[in-house]
Amino acid sequence: MKRAFRLDIALIHYPVVNKKQEVVGSAVTNLDLHDIARAGRTFGVGRYWVVTPYRQQQELAASIAGHWTEGYGGTVNPDRANALSIIQIRASLEQVLADINEQDGTAPLVVATSASPLCKKISFQGVRSTLQAGKSVLLLLGTAWGLAPEVLERTDAALPPITGPGTYNHLSVRSAASICLDRLCGNWEEVG
Amino acid sequence: MKRAFRLDIALIHYPVVNKKQEVVGSAVTNLDLHDIARAGRTFGVGRYWVVTPYRQQQELAASIAGHWTEGYGGTVNPDRANALSIIQIRASLEQVLADINEQDGTAPLVVATSASPLCKKISFQGVRSTLQAGKSVLLLLGTAWGLAPEVLERTDAALPPITGPGTYNHLSVRSAASICLDRLCGNWEEVG
Repeated sequence: MKRAFRLDIALIHYPVVNKKQEVVGSAVTNLDLHDIARAGRTFGVGRYWVVTPYRQQQELAASIAGHWTEGYGGTVNPDRANALSIIQIRASLEQVLADINEQDGTAPLVVATSASPLCKKISFQGVRSTLQAGKSVLLLLGTAWGLAPEVLERTDAALPPITGPGTYNHLSVRSAASICLDRLCGNWEEVG
Repeated sequence: MKRAFRLDIALIHYPVVNKKQEVVGSAVTNLDLHDIARAGRTFGVGRYWVVTPYRQQQELAASIAGHWTEGYGGTVNPDRANALSIIQIRASLEQVLADINEQDGTAPLVVATSASPLCKKISFQGVRSTLQAGKSVLLLLGTAWGLAPEVLERTDAALPPITGPGTYNHLSVRSAASICLDRLCGNWEEVG
């Protein structure tokens, strides 16, 4: 690793909002675990917290990750085992923050990936500078139609939405996570 | 649209290579269509060519896209219809190039997303400049373990691989496509 930064990500399945902005819980999906773990591992993420309060969903996530990290999958595809080994399953954001505090002895800057009037704004360069200064960061990703207001209230700041040349911006959480990680931890010299 | 560039993407299902570098064909997947169409639509891509020579796989891709663009899906989620409307299904890269030539009256710069000694290198900024100069670009994405040598031989240049701070770089094609599009068509002022 060229840089010794401390970035974690958390994929929130509850509480999130649906299309009508009602607070709901969403289902764990196989590709959210794989794609985001692979992007996380590529960009130097320490832990990928999968957050769901539902016992059966926790078991499903553990079963998927376990197949690759401890089961047959890892023997045929060690790269996938390597990626999925960063997954940690927890029931709530509170539990994630408590565990980070206990394991690291410090509280991370909690950053949302959706702009909201509830949150103070921070730029990608701002988070990049925070990481480079040695402060740990927890990046929150929302499933469904995004993080619920009660989660946003717990964050320290929010990144701006990712946009292109037009007005359409409906990226999957897998795409949004990948782009955020590239912007925060990618080798920008590759871009030039 | 702020910029009037002409960028297409093509997801190649044959010929690609497997883990042993043997030439194989891969299966069309639902999320490759959705995630890459959503990222494409967000970043101003004109057409998303889904390339497979297999009749049943073409029918599957058409059925998925049709559900959202013409069927029930589009009525409940117009944003998804909007994204999936950029999908075009073709049997081969040759057919894609022939159709672009016929529709646009010009040949695009064909750019691979995997570095290969077979290809001339081009930087992300180089492709960005090409687009800004009004030249059309076709970006090729490989499924499985990547584009086969016979596809790379047909390309004009290749982008460098996307890397993070470490040596691990096993991104899903959905993540790689999203990051490439952000690097080529994203609003870089958001990053600063």
